[in-house]
Amino acid sequence: MDDEPATEILEAAYRALCDHGYADLTMQDVAAEADTSTGLIHYYYDSKANLFSELLAHLYDRFTTELRSEPEGGPREHLAVLLDLLLADSETTPGREFRTAMLEVNAQAPSDEAIRSQLAAFDQALFERFREVLSAGVEAGAFDERVDPDAGAELLVTVVTGAHARNAAFDRAPERVHESVTRYAEAYLVADGSTEVAH
Amino acid sequence: MDDEPATEILEAAYRALCDHGYADLTMQDVAAEADTSTGLIHYYYDSKANLFSELLAHLYDRFTTELRSEPEGGPREHLAVLLDLLLADSETTPGREFRTAMLEVNAQAPSDEAIRSQLAAFDQALFERFREVLSAGVEAGAFDERVDPDAGAELLVTVVTGAHARNAAFDRAPERVHESVTRYAEAYLVADGSTEVAH
Repeated sequence: MDDEPATEILEAAYRALCDHGYADLTMQDVAAEADTSTGLIHYYYDSKANLFSELLAHLYDRFTTELRSEPEGGPREHLAVLLDLLLADSETTPGREFRTAMLEVNAQAPSDEAIRSQLAAFDQALFERFREVLSAGVEAGAFDERVDPDAGAELLVTVVTGAHARNAAFDRAPERVHESVTRYAEAYLVADGSTEVAH
Repeated sequence: MDDEPATEILEAAYRALCDHGYADLTMQDVAAEADTSTGLIHYYYDSKANLFSELLAHLYDRFTTELRSEPEGGPREHLAVLLDLLLADSETTPGREFRTAMLEVNAQAPSDEAIRSQLAAFDQALFERFREVLSAGVEAGAFDERVDPDAGAELLVTVVTGAHARNAAFDRAPERVHESVTRYAEAYLVADGSTEVAH
């Protein structure tokens, strides 16, 4: 534990969630992972439900920071970077175990208002980022002026959600839809006369 | 119970699943719904796991029959009918409670081989149906000859999966992406010079 024990506990909770899944996760697992006592975890986070809610808030901050990173290049590169980030090969990234744990968390959402609103916030952040990139692209002439940023963002968020669900539930590789959605971007979003390759 | 008690039990299991969710579902719930004894259910289906596996197989048959229905019209109407079927307004169809229960079932998939392979079979049936419709459309000149039926089907299945996940987890209306995916179909799939409206 370093001098930010509350944040250390959240990081440990993340690793313990990936290892044990949500239903089986105990405060003891988190304590073991953080190399501390369950007493200290209760001191900072009170209950498993509260710890988990704070973990989701922490992950939300990290996720939105990642989404907001501004790579070199224009809107088309931004879109390609976003799709790379969100549809990366699950076998070679640490995201897979997390997504599996999140399947369990998703199953809690209909009956747990706190989880439901946090999942909706992730979704909304992603939607807004896609919409921003599409808007900027239409404005800059990189995407066709007939592209509706809201409709395009809705489709892209839904694709990302579906890719994660299929990957976590039965190993469908997200790269397969990565290729499809890149073709979609090239064929549908890109303004006629642009010669740049989207990805 | 009519003269096909085994099928009646599956139909009752479906209704009980929608009412109680997967984790809380008991043989007693199914017996109450079927207006029969748990003894008879055990006689036909042995265990909850086996009953549920048979239920998924039964739903799979029903789903593939629905998918295979051949509406009037050409490939574009077929695609529109499929999207209507899969992305119908959740508030006015019985699908919502079932999808919520399926969130729980999805969460079992990573650790339950039988569930995982059945979910993969649903996914594969949907993929093949989309691919068939896209292929037929390219062949008939209704869709652009550059459309790759595999890539298009991958995108469409992923969109449908994502729409159901977002709807079940936090009430995102599937009609929103229905509109987006219809625009995608119009802009990307439809051959130049075709004047027919896809949806």
